[in-house]
Formats: sequence, structure tokens, C-alpha cells
Amino acid sequence: MSQAAVQGTLFVISAPSGAGKTSLVAEMLRSDETLGVSVSHTTRPMREGEQNGVNYHFVSRDEFEVMIGRGDFLEHADVFGNYYGTSHVWVRETLATGRDVILEIDWQGAEQVRRLMPECVSIFIVPPSASILRERLTGRGTDAPEVVERRLAEAAEECRHAGEFDYLVVNDQFEVALADLLAITRTQRLRMQVQQARHSAVLAGLSNQG
Amino acid sequence: MSQAAVQGTLFVISAPSGAGKTSLVAEMLRSDETLGVSVSHTTRPMREGEQNGVNYHFVSRDEFEVMIGRGDFLEHADVFGNYYGTSHVWVRETLATGRDVILEIDWQGAEQVRRLMPECVSIFIVPPSASILRERLTGRGTDAPEVVERRLAEAAEECRHAGEFDYLVVNDQFEVALADLLAITRTQRLRMQVQQARHSAVLAGLSNQG
Repeated sequence: MSQAAVQGTLFVISAPSGAGKTSLVAEMLRSDETLGVSVSHTTRPMREGEQNGVNYHFVSRDEFEVMIGRGDFLEHADVFGNYYGTSHVWVRETLATGRDVILEIDWQGAEQVRRLMPECVSIFIVPPSASILRERLTGRGTDAPEVVERRLAEAAEECRHAGEFDYLVVNDQFEVALADLLAITRTQRLRMQVQQARHSAVLAGLSNQG
Repeated sequence: MSQAAVQGTLFVISAPSGAGKTSLVAEMLRSDETLGVSVSHTTRPMREGEQNGVNYHFVSRDEFEVMIGRGDFLEHADVFGNYYGTSHVWVRETLATGRDVILEIDWQGAEQVRRLMPECVSIFIVPPSASILRERLTGRGTDAPEVVERRLAEAAEECRHAGEFDYLVVNDQFEVALADLLAITRTQRLRMQVQQARHSAVLAGLSNQG
């Protein structure tokens, strides 16, 4: 049976820094080959070891602003003078092939995405306590106090938007949090609407016998 | 932190006979101790080896009809002259303790439950094909053709209502179907509303630092 009609799901994952989001998402991608991660566009300079089209799509400020003007972005942000954005076209095309896409963005990006693609599934990851977050964000001990304070304030601001997400995963034990995330992605593929498209022939056969 | 505010979820599971529902649910209960199964009331006679309050709550026809009149049942049905029903009070009290409850009922029972508890999560299980279902339902070879035909017609009727459920699980490989079901139950516990109740102190701490 053709799978052409089956749409992938867009997963939006946000977290305060220090929650372990990046390691968790990397492990999700290793564990589940149906999942892909969105490659963002950015205007920041390429760093050593990075590859265009793999880590980011590196574009100039002018190109980026043309893309904004065309409405190419599902979400974009100006972070300390550099643009970052997710191409709407790329996401739609990938979902149409039946693959799921993970977007790792902050609560403001998530808000933009929800407005344009309300069918997305959004997940917020938190560390198990405020003291553990503080430890992780100050742990290196090499940053100036005001840098640490800004990081903590940003983390708190991010957490104040947790309630806007569909699911909450607490990253206390890495393996448990990973299993939680994989349960959420697996479950979306079992939704009746998705399954009716995937198994339409089976369902028709079952309903017409006897 | 107290877990008193956390509500359990009611899972309604239906399937045509021959889909493997009973074995799957039994294995779910073994794998996940947060899950409990509803013990129905019935007016059919107790069979050897059965225990009152374990397999069923055995009551008389008069008692059952008084309970119907009081609106005690979340769903009930008259099957070949015997009543079967699920106590509304028992389900609500169990959910209030934070436990999840599984109801194994047919599509008509599911329809009644959805009307009274629209927050329930409903799952439909199907075999991987009509021919496999036919094999399973005729396999014993000891039943009269008209009994087999009625069974097939009932299975088809049940499957025509699959679309009314939230999730569809195809029982092709038992272990995969079991993992699907456990992913669905796990995921419901990660919904923001449930998690906000469970982790309110953590979320408050995280949002107020910095």
C-alpha cells in the first residue's frame, strides 16, 4: 500500500539551557530513524568544523531579509545581531514525505510555529529542580557573575512559558527522559487520523467481511 | 510534594474478537503497575474458579436494574440476556487516586463512556488483515458455519467504528503492539495539564529564580 498520504508530525522542543535538551534530541535521532531534525538558516559566520547545509544553511543578511520578506520562515529570530530561522518550505516538504521533523527552538519560536502550524506537537523539557539548573548554569565557574545571572534570568523566563506546550518531560534520569520523548513521538504516529491514512486498505478489508 | 491533585486517565480499549486485545491488556497490566483494569458488574452466573469482586461484581437482575435507575453505570449492555456494566463511582474514585483505569468494552460501550467522560482516551486494536482475522475466528473448525458467520459479521461491525477512537494499534507482532499501547499510556501522563499538577513545585521554582 502507498504511504504517500501519510503526513509526518512536526515536534517543537524547547527547554531552558541546562535542561539537557541537545543531548536528548541527539539520542532521539539515533534511536528513531523516522525522526529528522530541521537545519536552520543563519547569518552568523561558519565556525571551524561546520558544514553548510549540515549544521546550518549559512546565508548573508541580505539573503535572509529577502527570505523574511517572502514569508519563507516558519519562525525566525535576531539573536545578538545574527538571524536564525526555520524554512517553512523545507519543513512542509519533509513532513509530506511522511518523516517527522524536530525543531529545537525557544518559547518565542515555538509561539510563531504554533500560529502557522497549529497541528504541531510541542514538548518542554525541564531539569528536576531549580537548584540543579543553577548548578549546571554556574558550574563552570569561569563566567562573570553578570553572565551567569543573565543566563539564570533567561532560563526562568523560558520556564514561565512551559504551560504553552503540549507535553512536559522532566530530565531527572537521562534514560527515563529519553523514553518519555520516544513514547511521545511514537504515540503521535498511532493517532487515528494518521493510522487511517497508513492502514486504509486493512481497515476497509476488516469492515467489509462477513 | 503531594500527588493528590494528579488525576488518572481512563483508557477505553475496543477491538473485534480475534484481535488479541485480552492478551495485550493482560500484558499491559503486568508491565505497568500504574494501570488498573475495571471490574465490571454482571448478572450472569458465577463460573467455577471465578471470584466475586475480582473477575466481576456478581449482582442480581433486580440489583442491576436499581443501579441503572440510579445512573450508577458509565456504560452497560444486555448481552444475550445478561447485564454487564461499569460502575461510574468506582472509575471516578480510582482515577482520583491518580491511577489509570483500562476499560475493555465494545464500540457501543465506548460511545456511552465518551458521552459521560469525554476526557477518556480511546484505543482500537485490529489484526493485521481481514484474512488473518477470518483464520483466527474460524480456526477452531468446531463451530457451526452460522456461528462463524455471525462472529465475522460482528467483527466487521466493530471495525466500522474504529474511526471513532483516538488511537489505532495494529496487532501484527505482539511485542510491537504492546510497546505501542504502553507508549500511548505513558504519553498521557506527560501531558502538560497532568504534569503541571504533578510537578507544580518544580515549575514554580524554575520560573522564579535568577
